[in-house]
Amino acid sequence: MEEMNQSQQHQNSAIKPIIPIRFIVKLGGAAITCKNEFEKINEEALETVSLQLRQAMMSGSSSGKSLGMDWSKRPGISETPSVDEDFRDQPVFDSGSFIVVHGAGSFGHFQASRSGVHKGGLDQPLVKAGFVATRISVTSLNLEIVRALARECIPSVGMSPFSCGWSTRERNIVSADLSMVTKAIDSGFIPVLHGDAVLDASLDCTILSGDVIIRHIAEQLKPEFVVFLTDVSGVYDSPPTEPNAVLLKEIAVREDGSWFVVKPKLEDMNRQDNCSIS
Amino acid sequence: MEEMNQSQQHQNSAIKPIIPIRFIVKLGGAAITCKNEFEKINEEALETVSLQLRQAMMSGSSSGKSLGMDWSKRPGISETPSVDEDFRDQPVFDSGSFIVVHGAGSFGHFQASRSGVHKGGLDQPLVKAGFVATRISVTSLNLEIVRALARECIPSVGMSPFSCGWSTRERNIVSADLSMVTKAIDSGFIPVLHGDAVLDASLDCTILSGDVIIRHIAEQLKPEFVVFLTDVSGVYDSPPTEPNAVLLKEIAVREDGSWFVVKPKLEDMNRQDNCSIS
Repeated sequence: MEEMNQSQQHQNSAIKPIIPIRFIVKLGGAAITCKNEFEKINEEALETVSLQLRQAMMSGSSSGKSLGMDWSKRPGISETPSVDEDFRDQPVFDSGSFIVVHGAGSFGHFQASRSGVHKGGLDQPLVKAGFVATRISVTSLNLEIVRALARECIPSVGMSPFSCGWSTRERNIVSADLSMVTKAIDSGFIPVLHGDAVLDASLDCTILSGDVIIRHIAEQLKPEFVVFLTDVSGVYDSPPTEPNAVLLKEIAVREDGSWFVVKPKLEDMNRQDNCSIS
Repeated sequence: MEEMNQSQQHQNSAIKPIIPIRFIVKLGGAAITCKNEFEKINEEALETVSLQLRQAMMSGSSSGKSLGMDWSKRPGISETPSVDEDFRDQPVFDSGSFIVVHGAGSFGHFQASRSGVHKGGLDQPLVKAGFVATRISVTSLNLEIVRALARECIPSVGMSPFSCGWSTRERNIVSADLSMVTKAIDSGFIPVLHGDAVLDASLDCTILSGDVIIRHIAEQLKPEFVVFLTDVSGVYDSPPTEPNAVLLKEIAVREDGSWFVVKPKLEDMNRQDNCSIS
C-alpha cells in the first residue's frame, strides 16, 4: 500500500460523483492488442468488447439502434464521416456510471523498456526521449479505444493520467485528482484512462500501470464491481499456458487483505479450458 | 474579459513554473491543416514548423543531430520504429520553456458545427455525440502534432484542456489548473494544448478555442513572447485575401487595453504580399 502524508492524502481526496460508480472495467492489453505484434490492435476483440460493454451499460434501457459517435476519418474505411440523422429523435442514452481503464499490450512497452522510463532519470536523453515516445504510443492506443467505444454509441472521453496531473513518489501514487473523472461521469460520459508515463517525485519519472490506477480509483470511488477483461478465463494457480493450470473460480479476501481459494476445493482439481475474450 | 469570483480566481491561480516561460507559440489551424479538406494535415507545413520551432528552442545550444522521439509506427512509412543509439551520448537537449497551443483547422469544426456543441445542451443526444466526436477529432490532430514535434527531437507532451479539468461558464474560463503545465515545463517537456470541447457550468458544454487558452495562459504565466504562426504574414486592416489589404507591421496596446497602429502610418500604405508559413 502507498504511504501518504496528510498533504498527499488531501491531494487524493476525490470529489465523489453524484452518480455512484457501478463498474470499473479493465481492458487488458493482452485482450485488445496483438501482444506479439508491435502496436497492433486486435480489432475483432476490441469490437466485441465494445459491443459487450454497450450491452452491459444499456442494460435496463431499450437496446435500440446504435448510433456511432466517431465522426472522424478512418484509414481505409471511408473518407467521409457519417452522422446519423436519427440522433435528433434518439432518447439520451443512459450509459450508467462506468470507468474504463486499459493496459498497453503491444503499445508503449517497447518504448518504455528500450529507454528505461520506469527507472526514472530524465537527465538522461534516452529516458527523456523514451518518456515522450511512450506517451505517444499509449495515447495512440487510448484514442483508438475511445473511437471503438464511440462507434458503439458509448460516450467515451479519453483522459491521460499524466495530463490529469497524476504523479508518483517511488512509483506510489501521491497525486491523483479524480475530480475531472467524476465531473465527466456526472455529465454522462465514460472516462477512458490508461497506463501512462508520469512524473515521479523521487525518480523524475516512471510508468504508472493500469492496475495501479484501478486500485486507486476503486479505493477512492468504491465501485460496485471491478471487472477485468483479459485473454484467459480468470486467475489460475499457475501460468494458464501450462497444461495443468487450474482456474480458481472463487477467491475470498479477508479484512486484513489476506486471501484463500474457495473454489475449486483442493481435492476438486478439474481442468478448465482457456477461452479468448472475443 | 472573464468575470470571476474569489473561489474561481483561486482555482485559476497557477503554480508559477520554476523556469520562466519564454514563448507561447500558437500553431494556427489554417497553417498546419488543409483547411478545405476534411481532417487533412498539411504535412509539409507541419514539418517546416516543427523544424523552425526546434531551431528556435535550441538557439544558444549546439545545433547537433536531431534525434527523433517518436518511436511509433507510421502508416505507409515503416513497420519498425527506429531508436537512435546516439541517444546514449547525446547531451540533454535544453528546450527552453515553450508552450505550444494549436487550433483545429479542418479537425473538429465539422463535428462541432454539425452538433452545435458550442451552444451546449448535453441532454440532446446529438450534442452529446458531437462532444465525443469533436474530442476524437481534435485529439487525433493533437497526437499528430505531438508526433511531428517529437520527430524533431522536441520533447512534446499532449495535454487536452478537457482532461486537464479546464471548464467554462457561459464560455468564459472559470477553472483552468495550470499546475500540470508548469510541472511538465519544469521537467523539461513542451506541453502541447489545443482547442477542445469542455464542460460549461451554465451551458453544459461548449468549445474552448486555442486563442482563449493562450490569453488565459499568457495572463497567468506572463511569457516573454506570444507568437502566432498562421498562413498569412500578420494582422491586416481587412481580410488578407482582398487585393488592397494592408499588413499592420506594428500595433501598440495601451494599459487600458485600447490599441492603435504604429506602422505603417496612415499615409504609408504600401501593399504587402501574403506569404505562406511553409
